[in-house]
This record gives sequence, structure tokens and C-alpha cells, in this order.
Amino acid sequence: MSGDHLQALFAPRAVAVIGASDDSAKWGNILAQRALASGDGRAVLLVNHRGGTVLGEPVHVSAVAGARALDVRVDLAVVCVPAHGFVASVADAVSAGARAIVGITAGLSETGAEGARVETEAVAVAREAGAVLVGPNCLGIVDTSTDLQLAHAALPAGDVAVLSQSGNLVLDLASLLADRGLGISRFVSLGNQADLGVVELLHACADHEATRAVAVYAEDVVEGRRFLAAARALRTAGKPLVLLAPGRSEAAVRSAASHTGSLTSSSMVVDAACAAVGAHRVDHPTQMADLLLALRQPRRMSGRRAAVLTDGGGHGAVGADALSAVGLSTPVLTGPVTEELRSALWASATVTNPVDLAGAGEQDVLSYVRGVQVLLASDQVDGVLLTGFFGGYSAGQSDLAAPELAAAGLMADAVVAQHKPLVVQTIYPDSPAAVVLSAAGIPVHRDIDRACTVLAGLVEPDPSPAGLGGELPDPAAPATDTSYDGARALFADAGIAFPAAVSVTDVAGLEAALDRLRFPLVLKATGRLHKSEDGGVVLGLADRAAVRAAYDDLVARLAPPTVTVEEMADVRDGVELIVGSVRDPKFGPVVMVGLGGVFAEVLADTACAIAPVSVAAARQLLLSLQGAPLLLGARGRTPVDLDALAEVVARVAGLAAAHPELVELELNPVLAGPSGALALDARLVLG
Amino acid sequence: MSGDHLQALFAPRAVAVIGASDDSAKWGNILAQRALASGDGRAVLLVNHRGGTVLGEPVHVSAVAGARALDVRVDLAVVCVPAHGFVASVADAVSAGARAIVGITAGLSETGAEGARVETEAVAVAREAGAVLVGPNCLGIVDTSTDLQLAHAALPAGDVAVLSQSGNLVLDLASLLADRGLGISRFVSLGNQADLGVVELLHACADHEATRAVAVYAEDVVEGRRFLAAARALRTAGKPLVLLAPGRSEAAVRSAASHTGSLTSSSMVVDAACAAVGAHRVDHPTQMADLLLALRQPRRMSGRRAAVLTDGGGHGAVGADALSAVGLSTPVLTGPVTEELRSALWASATVTNPVDLAGAGEQDVLSYVRGVQVLLASDQVDGVLLTGFFGGYSAGQSDLAAPELAAAGLMADAVVAQHKPLVVQTIYPDSPAAVVLSAAGIPVHRDIDRACTVLAGLVEPDPSPAGLGGELPDPAAPATDTSYDGARALFADAGIAFPAAVSVTDVAGLEAALDRLRFPLVLKATGRLHKSEDGGVVLGLADRAAVRAAYDDLVARLAPPTVTVEEMADVRDGVELIVGSVRDPKFGPVVMVGLGGVFAEVLADTACAIAPVSVAAARQLLLSLQGAPLLLGARGRTPVDLDALAEVVARVAGLAAAHPELVELELNPVLAGPSGALALDARLVLG
Repeated sequence: MSGDHLQALFAPRAVAVIGASDDSAKWGNILAQRALASGDGRAVLLVNHRGGTVLGEPVHVSAVAGARALDVRVDLAVVCVPAHGFVASVADAVSAGARAIVGITAGLSETGAEGARVETEAVAVAREAGAVLVGPNCLGIVDTSTDLQLAHAALPAGDVAVLSQSGNLVLDLASLLADRGLGISRFVSLGNQADLGVVELLHACADHEATRAVAVYAEDVVEGRRFLAAARALRTAGKPLVLLAPGRSEAAVRSAASHTGSLTSSSMVVDAACAAVGAHRVDHPTQMADLLLALRQPRRMSGRRAAVLTDGGGHGAVGADALSAVGLSTPVLTGPVTEELRSALWASATVTNPVDLAGAGEQDVLSYVRGVQVLLASDQVDGVLLTGFFGGYSAGQSDLAAPELAAAGLMADAVVAQHKPLVVQTIYPDSPAAVVLSAAGIPVHRDIDRACTVLAGLVEPDPSPAGLGGELPDPAAPATDTSYDGARALFADAGIAFPAAVSVTDVAGLEAALDRLRFPLVLKATGRLHKSEDGGVVLGLADRAAVRAAYDDLVARLAPPTVTVEEMADVRDGVELIVGSVRDPKFGPVVMVGLGGVFAEVLADTACAIAPVSVAAARQLLLSLQGAPLLLGARGRTPVDLDALAEVVARVAGLAAAHPELVELELNPVLAGPSGALALDARLVLG
Repeated sequence: MSGDHLQALFAPRAVAVIGASDDSAKWGNILAQRALASGDGRAVLLVNHRGGTVLGEPVHVSAVAGARALDVRVDLAVVCVPAHGFVASVADAVSAGARAIVGITAGLSETGAEGARVETEAVAVAREAGAVLVGPNCLGIVDTSTDLQLAHAALPAGDVAVLSQSGNLVLDLASLLADRGLGISRFVSLGNQADLGVVELLHACADHEATRAVAVYAEDVVEGRRFLAAARALRTAGKPLVLLAPGRSEAAVRSAASHTGSLTSSSMVVDAACAAVGAHRVDHPTQMADLLLALRQPRRMSGRRAAVLTDGGGHGAVGADALSAVGLSTPVLTGPVTEELRSALWASATVTNPVDLAGAGEQDVLSYVRGVQVLLASDQVDGVLLTGFFGGYSAGQSDLAAPELAAAGLMADAVVAQHKPLVVQTIYPDSPAAVVLSAAGIPVHRDIDRACTVLAGLVEPDPSPAGLGGELPDPAAPATDTSYDGARALFADAGIAFPAAVSVTDVAGLEAALDRLRFPLVLKATGRLHKSEDGGVVLGLADRAAVRAAYDDLVARLAPPTVTVEEMADVRDGVELIVGSVRDPKFGPVVMVGLGGVFAEVLADTACAIAPVSVAAARQLLLSLQGAPLLLGARGRTPVDLDALAEVVARVAGLAAAHPELVELELNPVLAGPSGALALDARLVLG
């Protein structure tokens, strides 16, 4: 969007409400009210074809007529007429000068082909005139920095921009933000995104001075790669992006030709997209509001290790469980830090983690401060959870009220002076001491699960987004041969190792191949999507006679175009994986890894990343699998060559990125051994 | 406890505070204050050896002197003297007539052997005199039904009994309960449980008229089987038991000889105990308070299927995700119920689940009522989540305020008239409509995760507790032979099938065995804990020559006391599992199941139950495994014989229950096939 568009949309000098109404059950009434009530000094034109008055104000029969009568140029038109009048109203709006249109009108593309036709026509009219359009089928727009309130609800001012595909969820979020002292800088209801979509609006937020963080509710992120670029622009601008994208509970709905496809849900891809740009995905509005508040302070966890500090074992134990539930650990502290804690705290204290003051709070409330200081300074933890009674001394009449207040001030100073987060759970969140902590930007919660979720939300994305979802390379020469031989060749050219193999079409070829290959051998009948169907793969052929018999049988049964004769890998000392890619309809090439067999298929233990990925990021992806201990040498195995395996993953991702014509690539299995990784099967699917 | 003890502890006519003090930093001051402030008309004796006054009241130099002076018999004595004076104070208390003592005094068994000696002596003095003792090292006792406030904090009155091993957590819970309009009937701080423990106090709650539900915070449930009996007494009394027992995050700490042991954490056993008695385990105080409120209404989920009703797709999608996060499903509705919804709602509504009124709320707020009615009546769901805007019409000035209030009343009537729960999440929990719902006992929450957690908490325990943790049978004749042969014999006598096998000690025996067994065979060298160590197991011996060679090799290398020659099972068509039991230090015999290999060991995908168990409960246990789809025929396999497998599990549990001398029993692997289950190895460990 140009600066002119931004001004027209978010800081209009004149607004037309087209479809203004006196019927309080109609949108045209609500929006007329909002327009008149906000934006002191802004010209408001109420328009409907009947004329007369609405809310006691004169109504113009068209925006053009109104603009002429008032001698203004309309910047922004909000259109809330019935669908059949939508195109005409858009035309009227742009004729009156509008460079921005907010289409409230529903009954368009969301209802079917006829509505889509009308919508397309309206967008064409707007574009032709050089105007941008929000919606249609949306609930309006708000910019509190310009006192523009043109949505279904008047929203409280603040510095969080909200872009949403749901109206009621924004009411929910706004009320939760208000409870936390936060408000909204801009709100755009996305609607059908016929012209302006979430991508353009994210960019608009990146440049918006009054916006400090962006909250997005999206049921469907379209234009995934452009979304990533916009999210990176926000990151560069230092504005956290928090995404509420439901769909975790949905089964994968992709109609997939490969295992890779059937094992990659669209929700996993959204997670991968967030990882690639350091965006924060949340599951519901309360978590969103909590995190938006917590992200205002600059301190982050650089890992997942937390210390728990409490004055009472119960809160310590419950806190450690609650940390574990959100994927944070409470490592046992050792060495110097325990000695420092021992000298900072009294003899009854537990110093291993959870750190329990064991009643010292009453004796010496500064114990809390010393405990926090020692823990924040330790390289054994990435952040600190204070949980339990703190705040209680100043919550009522007590000799300890003043000392606790002083302790809170010292604690806040200690936290602010360094880079690790402290998050607090207290029975007394409204106590003077807790208020001191909150005022210093320290997240303070009544409930332990909320505190822990926030602390987990402060973990910096790992792996670094640098290695994930890089720029797509220029397309390589398109692959055309998706036969097994063709697939092997494409992967092998990219540096992926396969067992020695020869493709044969007759017995003579077979005999020649047997001279060059080492037994035992495998035969694969090609020409079918799943070679193993109908017994198309024969393993463990120990000698020439066995190979010949198996070959004759394959040819007789399946008449394959070719048969591949391969040396058989010894799988005993390795781990089998699936490495593949799918072309996500929104985010493009996505690389997927999983451990072989039951791990991937029964337990859905797979992980994916937006391609291409660096080798380091591929390594992290592998280690994120539940079954990763198997790669690292669990159950007495030799650890696999993780570097070689990560190389394979990065190369598959690179191929997927360079070959837009391929919708799926798959190596299944890849055999990862102690030294090297070998692909035992390969498949390509053209789009 | 006798009725006399209950009266002395919870409804004393005279209370002595031994160790009363004027120093506001001391427990003796706080408790003296509480004793004087509560229990109108109750005699309070303040006792310390210095005499004089405390809080302006006369002090007696002993309880005996005070009782004599006031001519009363002390019922209850609260002792908060230093550890070295504890025994003498207990003796003084019982001499003054006390039949109940609350030991606040710390520095006893929790500090080591000397403290334990003092504690034991004090308990002996009390018991000798026929008195019961709470604590020591506890924070006191409260019974609001008799206005007895003798704890670290004065607690609000209500009908929830609280038994706790942590003091600050009770403050936390009490404040959360108060926020929800709930309060406490009795509170007992358990302390060291030297005499009275959680078991006796649970029984006391079962019989307590003013107690409607019981909340327990326990870091360590001792006397597990007696705990189960007490919990069952509560269940019989219709009083829900909610247990907060931290430790989920701890790694298994058991020092285990078997895989079964290493794969069974004490937290899993606590879950199994809750399942056996229909107790509700929670993770933190907020969840505890929410569930205690929700359990007051009698409606329960009989399965895990929920319907979501909302007026806006955003809340529906987020609600479905939130249900999934707590293990509830949102099944797609089909057939008649969708037709009923279609006729009850307007044309734009989505009727598949989530059910979305799609803006009908504004048009016709009674849509909500009709939607709830149809969903509650459907046999496709076990409960309903209403989420989003409802409440908003009556939250402010609106023409819809009165209709919404009427709708809330009708909705409450519909809910109360049947047995499935409705749980509500609303942006407006304080609105008049929401208050109507709350008043009818319908759980109303501001946050969607809280609402869903409560709905999941209302699922009736499945499987029925009837089949779990039954009465322990009379002990069978103790097993003494823990050799492989002995183990096989014990299991086989219990009806568990093994492959044909012969135990041999020499070549002649081997030759004779080979005449009777079918090849291929397996040789196992016995006499070591893990037969597979050092190559003690040789598989796949196809003929006599191979067996002889392997035998000679085993004898030469390992000199085993015996060698077992077994027919080799064909594992290709089956699934390997581990079935075993451990003797939990608190709960006694616990049966464990897991899928073989990586499932159990890398993914910790195991499940356990308090033994003995019914076959039906064993079947549910197997189906609770993450990898259960493998048993049911995932990946094109033939389903296994689940009935036969469940029989094996129930029989192992029965053996464990009947053999207290065995600390571990293990069948690993059990091969479950399409018809039958075969144990391929067996092990017993004596205590």
C-alpha cells in the first residue's frame, strides 16, 4: 500500500458510510453511530438512496452528492449495503474520491459463484480507480491513533494491532487486553480478503509508529511466502507477531500420494512458518493476551531451563510440574550456584531447584531478592519462576509489608539490569509488592499454569529462524522423469547416497548387472506408485539363482517396465527414517522428517520445516522428534551420523525449493548409520 | 477414629494452646489469637511455662494447672513449643484430659534420627493416654462447622474439606475457592503424619455432614491400599475427591531390576490409584478450585465426545482445539441430529460440530436454547460447550438484554432436566445471563481452556473403577523358585501360554528334547538376570546340527545351570508387548503394559493399574496405549486377539496380587497374535 492508501484507510479526513440506516438492528446504523462519535473534526457523510436523516443527521443519496454538497473529497468509504448494490456503491465511493473502501457487505464470494462474481467486479472497480478495498464480508476497521472507530465494537486504545478473520474473537481479545491494561492501535477485520489481505496489513503494521505488537487471528493463512516476508518485516521492526490459528485438532485433510503428505498436517506447517520467522503461535485468546503483555518486556529465555523459587515446598513441586507441562525443564542445580544460594539463603533452604526458602520469607523477606539475583546470574538456567506467597506480606496488615515492598523494588531492579526473564505467580497479584513487579514489566499471574505458559512463550525461537524457510532459489530445470530411476538420479545429483543399483529390462541386462553388484541383492519392479504393492520388491537375494528366480517371477506377475537390481543395505546397525517434502498450498515447499514405520505412522511423530533449510536447522528438526533418542544411541545402539542425516534433509529441502513442478519428494526409508546415511527408496510426484 | 476423638479434634469444648506467646513472630501468638477469636463460648486455655499474660489474657503454666483452675477438661491441645519440650507438653495435654493433639512443633522426624526419636516418644505418650495426634510439623486445624480456627490462616467457611501437606498451597486454594463463592468445612495440615494420617482424616470427612467434597494436597500418599479404601468410602458417600499430587515431571526414580519397574513412575501409579476409585487428579490449585465448583452439579460426561455451540466461527474453531488439548473430541454430527439442528436454527447455521449459529444470536437469541436442547438430547455427544458471545446481549444496554436473560433461564431449565453437562465460556461471565446460568450450577468461565478442562474433569472415570484395584486375595503359597523354569511354571499354572520348551542340563537331555520339539528352536542359557546378556539367547536354530553347535558354545562360554530349548514363535504376524507388575511401596501390586521395544522404552508409552484388575479393565488399559492402533490392525496388520491379551494382563495382575513375596513379575515379550497370546520370556524377582 502507498502512503496515500494508508492515509485514506487509517487516517481519513472524510469518511462516507454508504448504507447508513436508522434501524438499530442494521450495520448501517451501528457504523453511522461509530463514525459520528469518533474522529473529532473528521467529515462524516451518511449515505443511502432514500435520503432523509439518520440519527438526526442529514443523509446524502450518494457519496458523490454528499462530497459535492460538503465540498470535501471522501478518503474512506464504509460500504454496508445489500450485496446486489455493492458494486454500485463502490463505484459511487471511488467517484467521490475514496482511495480506500471497507466492504461490510456480506453475501459475496463466501456464498458461491454469483457472489464471487459481484465481489470480483467490485474489486475491479476499486482497483481501476486506484483504491484499495478491505473485506468485503468484514466487520470494519479501527485506528485508535487517529480516533477512527468504524467497526462492530468500539475498541480501547493501545498499541496492539489486531488483524482478524473473526469478529467475536476480537471482542474477546479486546476485553482480555483491557483487563491487562492493554489496548488496540489498529484493528482490521479481514473478511474475504478480496483485495487487501493479511500480508498488506502486516506490512502496514510494521510501519505504524503507534503499533508495538501485532495479533493475528487467521483460520487460513493464504499467500504463505508473502506472509513470511511480512512477518520478517515485523521482526526487523522489533514488533512481536502473535498468531492464533486454530486447526491443531483437525486430522490431516491433505489428499496425499505419499506418506510424507499424509503425515504433514496444515497445522504443522503453520507451526513451521512461525518457527521460520520467530512468530509466536498461541491456542486461545487468553494465552494471546497474556503473551502480548509479557512480550512488552525485552527479556527472553535463550533455552528451556527454568529455576523455581518459592517459600514452601508445595508451590515448588506444583511449579515444576507446571513448567514441565509447557515443555520447560527444572534442572537440578549443581556446583557454584548451589554454594552461592547456600550462602545467600538460610540453612533450611533447599538449593537444588526448585529452590525453597523454607519459611525464610517471614524471617528475612530479602531472601527472595538474593535468591532471584543468584538464579538469574547462573548459566544453569534461562529464566526464573517465582511462585507462591510473595506479595502476601504487603497484602494485609503486617510488619513485613514495608520490607516486602522494598524487596519487590530491589527484585525489579535486579531483573531489569539483565536479560533473563522473571515470571511471577502469586496468591496476591493485587498486593503492593506485586504491583511494583508488574510496573517494572515483570509478568505477574494469579495462576501457575498461566505464569508457566508465559515463561515458555518467552523462549526465543530455536533453532534460529535464520536457517529456516530461506529465499526460494531460481527454479532448476524441471524434472520430467518421475520413474524410480529418474527419482534416484535427481536425488543422487544433489549429493544423496544410494546403494549401488542397475536398472535392467531383460535377462541379459540382469546377468551383466550381477557381475557388477555385491550380494545380497534386492529387486524392485518399477512402474507403480508403491513398489512394495503386489510383492513388487524382493529382499535378501543371496545368490544368482535366487535373483534369477525372483526376476522371472516379477516379470511374469507384474510385467514391470524395468527392474532395478540393488545391493541390499545392512539395516541392523542403523535407524530408518522417512525424509520428504510436500508443496503446501499456502507455504510452498515444506520438508518433513520422521522415524520409520510405527513412529511416523501410528504415533505421528514427524516434524516439518519451511524449505529450504540450513543443515543446522535440519539437525534441530531431527532432534525435535519424540523418537530422537534412537538417533542419539538409545537402547545401546551406536549413535547415527547426525551430520550426514541433516545433510540429506537439507538437500531434500533444497531440491523441493528448486523444483516447483514437484508436489512431493520422498526418500523412504533413509537408513542412518554410524557413518553416513543411505537412501533406500526414492519417489517424485509431479504437480 | 472414634466419635469421641472426632469430637475432641473437630468440636472441642475446651482448647489449650500450649506454647502461647506474645511475640507476634511466633506461632504461639498466631494460634492464641485464632483460638481466642473463634469458637464463641469455647473455653480457651493459654499455656506457657512463664505464666503471666498473652494478648491480655491470663496464661497457665501448664494445661493441667489451667484445667484445674478453670474446672474444665481440655478436649484439644495445640502444641507449639520448641522440639525439646514437645514430649512434656504432650504429656501435660493428655494429663489435662486432651483426647486430641495438634502438633505444630517442628524440628522432629523431618530433621533426622534424634527428632524422629522425640516424635515417636510423643506419639507413644498420646496413644498411651488414648489420644490422637495430628502432625507434628503441621500448620494446624480448622473446622468452620464448629467455628474452630486453629491454623496459620483463618479460612472462609464452606463445604470443601482440605487435607494438605503444604501450608501456602492451602492459602492459595482457599483464596481461589473464595473467588468462586466456595469455602472450607475442615482443614487439616497433615505435617509428619506421625499418628493420624490422610487415611483416617479422609474417613472423618466421609462421615462429616458439613463436608460435600474433599481436596487433598499430598506429595506422598502413604498406605496406598488404605487410601483406596478411604477414597471408596468417600465415593460411596457421594463426596468427590480431588487430588493434587505433584510429581508428574519427575523421572522414574525407582531402582528397578526389570523393565517393568523402570517404566512405571510413581506418578503413573497415583493416576492408576485415582482411576481405581474414581478420584479426580488435578495439576494445580486453579484447576482444583474450578473442578470443585463444577463437581457440585451432578451432571457428568459418560464419554469424551463434546459438542461446541457458538455464534461465530472463530470461537467454534478455538473451542474445538481447546477440547482436543484436554483429550475431548468434537465429533462431526450426522443424521437426525443435524436435521433437528437445521430446523431449530436458521439457514446460515453450521450444524456439523462445531455448531455455529452464524449471527443468529442477534436475530433470535432463543436459537442458543434450541441449539443446547438438541445437542444435549443427542446420543452423539456426552456434553456441550457453549462458547463466545452469549451473555453479551445482557452485559450492556441492548434491546436483547431481556430476551437473553429469558434464554438463559430456559437454557438452565433444559440443562437441569437431564444428565449431561453444559459448560460455558463467555466474554461476559458477570453478565446477568451468565449469572443465571451459574446460579443453576452450570460452570461458567471467562477462559476457554478453563472451561474445557472442567468439562474434561466431568468425564466419569473410564474404565469403571469396579474392575481396578480390587481386594487383595489371600496370599498364595509363596513362590521360591525364581529361575526361568520356575517363573514359566508359575505363569503357566495361572493359565498363561508359552511355546513348548524343555529344560536340559546335558547333551543327552538335549538330544531327547530335540525329539519332542518342532524346529526352528531357541536356546536360552539360564542363571542370569537378563538372559540376553553376553549372548545367552540363540534364536532361529533350524536343525539338530545348529542346535548342538549353539548348545556347546553356550555351555563353553557361560556354563549355565540349565539351558532351555524352546520352539520359536513366528513373530511376523503379531505384536510384541511387555506385561509385568511391580510392587509399589505405597500401593502394592501394580500391573503394567506396554508395546514392545522402542514404544515402551523410548516413548515411555506404558500404562499401569492397581492390581488385581478385571479382564474388561485390562482391555481398557491396553487400549489406553498411544500405540494401541497397532493392536487393532493399523498399517494393514491383522488385529490381535485382544481378549486373549487382556486375559494375560489380568492373570499377571492376579499373580502379583496373590504373591506379596514377589516384587516384580514380567513377561517380556508377550507375542499377541490374531488368535491368542504367547509369553516368550518370563521373570520373577523376590523381595
